[in-house]
Amino acid sequence: MPLFKPWEMNLQSIIGQIRQKKSFLCIGLDSDVGKLPPHLAGKKNSLFEFNRQIIDATQEFAIAFKPNIAFYECLGAEGWNQLEMTVQYIRDRYPDLFLIADAKRGDIGNTSKKYAETFFKHFDFDAVTVAPYMGSDSVIPFLVYPGKWVILLALTSNPGAGDFQFLSTTKQEKLFETVIKQSLSWGYPENLMFVVGATKASLLVKIREIVPDHFLLIPGIGAQGGDLAEVARYGLNGNGGIIVNSSRAIIFADATEQFAGVAAVRAKEVQSQMEGLLSERGLIV
Amino acid sequence: MPLFKPWEMNLQSIIGQIRQKKSFLCIGLDSDVGKLPPHLAGKKNSLFEFNRQIIDATQEFAIAFKPNIAFYECLGAEGWNQLEMTVQYIRDRYPDLFLIADAKRGDIGNTSKKYAETFFKHFDFDAVTVAPYMGSDSVIPFLVYPGKWVILLALTSNPGAGDFQFLSTTKQEKLFETVIKQSLSWGYPENLMFVVGATKASLLVKIREIVPDHFLLIPGIGAQGGDLAEVARYGLNGNGGIIVNSSRAIIFADATEQFAGVAAVRAKEVQSQMEGLLSERGLIV
Repeated sequence: MPLFKPWEMNLQSIIGQIRQKKSFLCIGLDSDVGKLPPHLAGKKNSLFEFNRQIIDATQEFAIAFKPNIAFYECLGAEGWNQLEMTVQYIRDRYPDLFLIADAKRGDIGNTSKKYAETFFKHFDFDAVTVAPYMGSDSVIPFLVYPGKWVILLALTSNPGAGDFQFLSTTKQEKLFETVIKQSLSWGYPENLMFVVGATKASLLVKIREIVPDHFLLIPGIGAQGGDLAEVARYGLNGNGGIIVNSSRAIIFADATEQFAGVAAVRAKEVQSQMEGLLSERGLIV
Repeated sequence: MPLFKPWEMNLQSIIGQIRQKKSFLCIGLDSDVGKLPPHLAGKKNSLFEFNRQIIDATQEFAIAFKPNIAFYECLGAEGWNQLEMTVQYIRDRYPDLFLIADAKRGDIGNTSKKYAETFFKHFDFDAVTVAPYMGSDSVIPFLVYPGKWVILLALTSNPGAGDFQFLSTTKQEKLFETVIKQSLSWGYPENLMFVVGATKASLLVKIREIVPDHFLLIPGIGAQGGDLAEVARYGLNGNGGIIVNSSRAIIFADATEQFAGVAAVRAKEVQSQMEGLLSERGLIV
């Protein structure tokens, strides 16, 4: 297995990016082909062309990019080609960016091994989101890659999160807490993060008690300063420790030929808020 | 949205296949490129060529085929092309076969919608396996397609199944039971099945109490008559009601140029056992 990067360096690289860019923003490349600016629609490799312009315009304000695989694979092989082009483009130009495959995969051991190959060997993603329902052997095959990360679904931001994640178990805790605690025997703060939806920021307190040191990937935040301030208040730790994702509010902020410039303005607004929050906490000077 | 088939006809079509072929066998196309017979390895479209020969040789003994998507997407766009060729091949030649995408997808609503488009519109699969952790809005976008099926993960056959699926909830039941019960408000026996691992056939009794009428997709069975008999004893209902999957034990039974013929022999052995079991129950004459 190729040794891409040692774990420690990768964690330090994420922390370094946060300090350097004064940002903990992840931009979600949920590049829905049906929502592209009209001047790009129907053109060859329109998804990649859209991504390329978004990435160039916004990368200085973000530490991570996160293509959601569904928006590529719904186009079949053509979509996968454009995902490959997007990953390669980021790797070639902006090697320090943390690159997350939002894939929510998970299967029995020998199959999860193939999914890990997909995202860590065929592609060169740094991290992949993984669903916990099938347990240890569905997650561990992703954790054996040096320098690569699992971002495990714990508490998601969608309405359906209430169906199972908040069930009380006989362990006197909610299912999402059990998922987090159980996974601590599979990985470390150097190769394991958690998806924690921002819809109830107060739950971050509880989660930070269980995992004070792990990074959290937090979706479900718009450009609203209020939410972001609350998430920062309860989520930030001494390393930063949170990566906050915004997708549609940035990438689809404008549908004209100026879409990338408008996306950059939105990303900069969020980065500025983040800079203030990092500064308040004394995490940057 | 295109109306592929009415639900009722599709359920009747599955039941009809079971009676006609005297079989409830699903063959898993877990076509690992590293395990292909040496004479195929390295050839162009080797995965498709392997699948084509397996399908032609075994289709008379099986009612369903189930490509596991991981084994295709680990090859990127090239793998997706061969998956498309495989699906098209089955659709053109053997339109009555029940075609399952073993994808274990699931995401927030607008993203699950894209995954549903992938497997039901880009491909023409009949069914897709879906992970339950994110709840209702991660599953329902797959259920709105007339004539298409969700096969929801309930009780899986891997060692990690024990980590969360057997947790006791405050509803006085195990998590997998809650998952099944909750999902009954999302779908019907005409568009919803459950993955139920065969490692503990006695649990089938409990599951059949909750869902007497739904079809169950049962993985984790080899060619061992004992296991199959036990699964049939507790799982079969008046419609058949179970689809038992076998992957490696059939498709990788032989690695010579005769691999497809050997696979057919294995598939026929399983079908013969199934015929006996269906006959004992009076489900075929």
